[in-house]
Amino acid sequence: MRQIPFYNTRLEGSFWGEKQRVSREVTVNSVYDRFKETKRFDALKCDLEQQKREGWQAHVFWDSDVAKWIEGVAYTLEYEKNKRFEEKVDELIDDMCASQLENGYYNAHFNIYNTDKRLTIRDKHELYSLGHLTEAAIAYYHATGKDKLLNLVKRYIDLVIKCFVEEKTAGFITPGHEEIELALVRLYRMTGEQKYLDLSKFFVDNRGNNDVDLIAYLDWANAEYAQDHLPVREQTTAEGHSVRAMYLYIAMADLALECGDEALFNACNTILHNIAEKRMYITGGIGSSCIGEAFTVDYDLKNEPAYTETCATLALSLFCRRMTAIKPFGLYGDIAEQAMYNVSISGVSIKGDEFFYENPLTIDLADHNKNPATKQKERYPITQRVKVFGCSCCPPNILRYINSVADFLYTEDDNTLYVHHYMNGVTEFDGKKIRQNTLYPSCGKVKLTVNGDYKKIAVRVPAWCEKFDASAAYSMKDGYAYFDAAEVLEFDFNISPRFVVSAPGVHDNAGRTALMYGPVVYCVEGVDNEGDIFGLSVNTSSAFEIIPDNYFSLPTIVADGYAKVDNGSLYSNINSVKYEAKKIKFIPYYGMENRGETDMLVWIPMK
Amino acid sequence: MRQIPFYNTRLEGSFWGEKQRVSREVTVNSVYDRFKETKRFDALKCDLEQQKREGWQAHVFWDSDVAKWIEGVAYTLEYEKNKRFEEKVDELIDDMCASQLENGYYNAHFNIYNTDKRLTIRDKHELYSLGHLTEAAIAYYHATGKDKLLNLVKRYIDLVIKCFVEEKTAGFITPGHEEIELALVRLYRMTGEQKYLDLSKFFVDNRGNNDVDLIAYLDWANAEYAQDHLPVREQTTAEGHSVRAMYLYIAMADLALECGDEALFNACNTILHNIAEKRMYITGGIGSSCIGEAFTVDYDLKNEPAYTETCATLALSLFCRRMTAIKPFGLYGDIAEQAMYNVSISGVSIKGDEFFYENPLTIDLADHNKNPATKQKERYPITQRVKVFGCSCCPPNILRYINSVADFLYTEDDNTLYVHHYMNGVTEFDGKKIRQNTLYPSCGKVKLTVNGDYKKIAVRVPAWCEKFDASAAYSMKDGYAYFDAAEVLEFDFNISPRFVVSAPGVHDNAGRTALMYGPVVYCVEGVDNEGDIFGLSVNTSSAFEIIPDNYFSLPTIVADGYAKVDNGSLYSNINSVKYEAKKIKFIPYYGMENRGETDMLVWIPMK
Repeated sequence: MRQIPFYNTRLEGSFWGEKQRVSREVTVNSVYDRFKETKRFDALKCDLEQQKREGWQAHVFWDSDVAKWIEGVAYTLEYEKNKRFEEKVDELIDDMCASQLENGYYNAHFNIYNTDKRLTIRDKHELYSLGHLTEAAIAYYHATGKDKLLNLVKRYIDLVIKCFVEEKTAGFITPGHEEIELALVRLYRMTGEQKYLDLSKFFVDNRGNNDVDLIAYLDWANAEYAQDHLPVREQTTAEGHSVRAMYLYIAMADLALECGDEALFNACNTILHNIAEKRMYITGGIGSSCIGEAFTVDYDLKNEPAYTETCATLALSLFCRRMTAIKPFGLYGDIAEQAMYNVSISGVSIKGDEFFYENPLTIDLADHNKNPATKQKERYPITQRVKVFGCSCCPPNILRYINSVADFLYTEDDNTLYVHHYMNGVTEFDGKKIRQNTLYPSCGKVKLTVNGDYKKIAVRVPAWCEKFDASAAYSMKDGYAYFDAAEVLEFDFNISPRFVVSAPGVHDNAGRTALMYGPVVYCVEGVDNEGDIFGLSVNTSSAFEIIPDNYFSLPTIVADGYAKVDNGSLYSNINSVKYEAKKIKFIPYYGMENRGETDMLVWIPMK
Repeated sequence: MRQIPFYNTRLEGSFWGEKQRVSREVTVNSVYDRFKETKRFDALKCDLEQQKREGWQAHVFWDSDVAKWIEGVAYTLEYEKNKRFEEKVDELIDDMCASQLENGYYNAHFNIYNTDKRLTIRDKHELYSLGHLTEAAIAYYHATGKDKLLNLVKRYIDLVIKCFVEEKTAGFITPGHEEIELALVRLYRMTGEQKYLDLSKFFVDNRGNNDVDLIAYLDWANAEYAQDHLPVREQTTAEGHSVRAMYLYIAMADLALECGDEALFNACNTILHNIAEKRMYITGGIGSSCIGEAFTVDYDLKNEPAYTETCATLALSLFCRRMTAIKPFGLYGDIAEQAMYNVSISGVSIKGDEFFYENPLTIDLADHNKNPATKQKERYPITQRVKVFGCSCCPPNILRYINSVADFLYTEDDNTLYVHHYMNGVTEFDGKKIRQNTLYPSCGKVKLTVNGDYKKIAVRVPAWCEKFDASAAYSMKDGYAYFDAAEVLEFDFNISPRFVVSAPGVHDNAGRTALMYGPVVYCVEGVDNEGDIFGLSVNTSSAFEIIPDNYFSLPTIVADGYAKVDNGSLYSNINSVKYEAKKIKFIPYYGMENRGETDMLVWIPMK
């Protein structure tokens, strides 16, 4: 099974084409400006005098922020030259190379601070940053043919192999924050050099195998925090810091594919089922708790405090993509899609220049700063998007994600083309040409034109789809409709608004429903609905008014509902309470909090 | 208007007679044993050598715990001599008197520790403890005629007058924790000495009048925490630490009555309306936040983290009782009753020997200790009753409350007997005799026999009562039915189960209902209902099965409901979800968590 890389695809208009346009016109610049202002670029020079003079210090993982920006820029360069950014990236790479130490080490913080502590403190993210630099180097080399950054990371990785594997002089055995494991597999795939695959396997296989490693780590965390509670092949549930977990699972899936490691694939499959069936918000958000940005227990999916970091969901969909590349199985694509159309893009504003790190499912402004008695405030996720974070991992992560989103579209084997996702565009590779004409997910119709040497074409039919129509006969297997290959296939997922309820175990959603439109979760915002949105309930037999909306790139939806009338009493006998009919306007969840700070909810009481 | 003190009433069997029996047979001993074990009694001796030898230190407010136990014992002595306890109390009083300083000062901590800090630190609760000692002294003197403790507190209060009013040498102006203000009014009423009323007025009138006072107080709190944000007559909302707030409001109501201070009464009335209409749980619980044990903002009534300290609700009902003594107004009695039958008694176990400090409305055990990734745990109220707390204010407070609960029954003026509450028993005073025959609140029927020189008899008809039947004609005014005086009046509040909903502003209760029976809130417990109680919804048109229950002293109730069937999917299209019919058993909320740790909820989704 081969994945068709994104750079073979040109997305045209429609949903993702538009997202890419905004990303290339706005986000890439916005992240650049913020990183410049916050000295993330200057930091790469490792100029201690400058930092002293200007009164700032390079942070241990600033490298990784810049690396993701470079990776994002590289993806845009696949489509369109941009001299200014290419020069900027070259300059950044020059700065890094000039500071790379003789032995290959490079980190913008440890090059000049705590120099005796290099590769000794497990939580200092050096290998995480190296992983992102590696991904950036691969992307930039592919887009431009320039290998300077690639050579930097190769030299650095040789040092890592020496310190961690050969001489065991490093201060720990496996990284505190995974990332390098998956980057090494990418590097192996690009270079064919076995040592990279071996190092990835070394880190993955040692995880959960030793105690000392963890004890030298963090005093407030348990082994689960860093997925260290069990050897990876014995892990069955998604645990700990959700981004770290996803990066590990991605590497596990990559290694399962490269090494034909069935035990590793089975572990990935079991963990992904645990996420999909018990630990994921309807928005694709994962990691319920702000304490450790972590997974907690099955069904713990509270809406208001939901942490659900953007990066975690981006990575969840990448994990699913890896799984799809091993085995076409409906759930993998379904979860990738649920992540893709909700929290992945709720993390960036419609305009493209402001970001959410956390993506709660309820924003109740009355709850914030609510205790006049004390200066101590309860913790709630922020309610307004910002231009940059102290830990600004999400903005450049969204940039690289959106610009490589076509990676999700296709895999092929010798007989079959697998169509996993639906985006308007054309893909050309190896003399083959595939075209999708679709307004998905505004409309469920897809026209697929395939010129290629396939016997079968397999099309993922999402589990939410209640009525699938197709222009030709097909047979269903594992969530895919298998057609005999034809130049043109037309099919329709019949997208229309539908109400969804959650499993009884999700206590926060008892008696409540969420509105979805295809894979897109909708929400109710105060700015669209008069009065207190938390006093509304929805008629689940409602007819829908579907209103095209250019701002959100998807229709808004109006449903029938009710507002409880305030009779002035805090508690009233049920017969004395009145409800008035009320139209309730829903917008796509990813578009929340784009029009000023406002109340928002996804799960609304049913009536 | 005169209030008829509790000691004129003998409650017989039925609801409160039974509570008093348990209190006198179990609670008084249980609190005694725990206080003895925890050295609270020994502490009164102020024996520094003993404390050093045994390795403990008297706490600044342990005096107040013991004082409330003495007050509770005194109330039991009004009915039944108990030589053992009377001797014990005499011994404790002797210990205190032996340690009282020459200048009148007495505090079990400051007598031997930080002796240069006496009456200088606003948050050290010395005046709070003195207030409770004063209430204990008054009660013990009334029950036994012994005035030794009374003389101790009088000497101490003279010192307070000197330090705070005459010489202004104290380190602050008004106490950090109110209580002495209301105790001083009681002492004034007993002795007729104006200086006590004046001191109470001094403390109340200075509250909120000066900044310095607050600044020297706590660095994490705002002025609202100690009701210091405004002069008391300008306060319109219940603010800050809920117990402190209630003790202040009680004193304000007492002073309003004694001084005919209409502005003070109006402030009390406005604040009580704010509580009743916007800041009180259906259980009578107040103080939503654990941060500062405080009121927050209107409608912030989240069920699971609800702090709602037992003492705060006990005091809320006492505040309402004071208001009733000024003006018979239905709301005052209604709120007193809502507090009385729910959180006031949920604070003590059915057996009488274990206690809750906090009284949440949802206990979801799956939420507790739910983050395996970290050692940091989210805060939740405890879910099992305990025998003693570090800050053990609630247990002796419940003791004194239950044994003086007949205080709530009657007030009179020259023409009218006001009947505020319904308890089976007989009251004799001034040659008059009033008898209530009732099983209230098991049954809404009351037979009232009055031998006394009244023209009118006014009977509070609770706002929850949908059908009031009476044996004679009456006219309604302010929530009271006014009858022409008759020797026998029979009436019926027709108590039956009913569903209640909350105002739309209470976001946590959207789409949910609570079951009530008269003034008693009911709840669903895991121990009575198979499966996950948080997956249940109730049919609000249900018929009810009412099952007599001796354990709870009130019937349990079974209603028709539904359980969402788990189809294995985390999210499902609404049409594919099935519900199965399910009988749901409810018990009185005050009986929660008496049969082992179990899930509990009050507000259940409606279907």
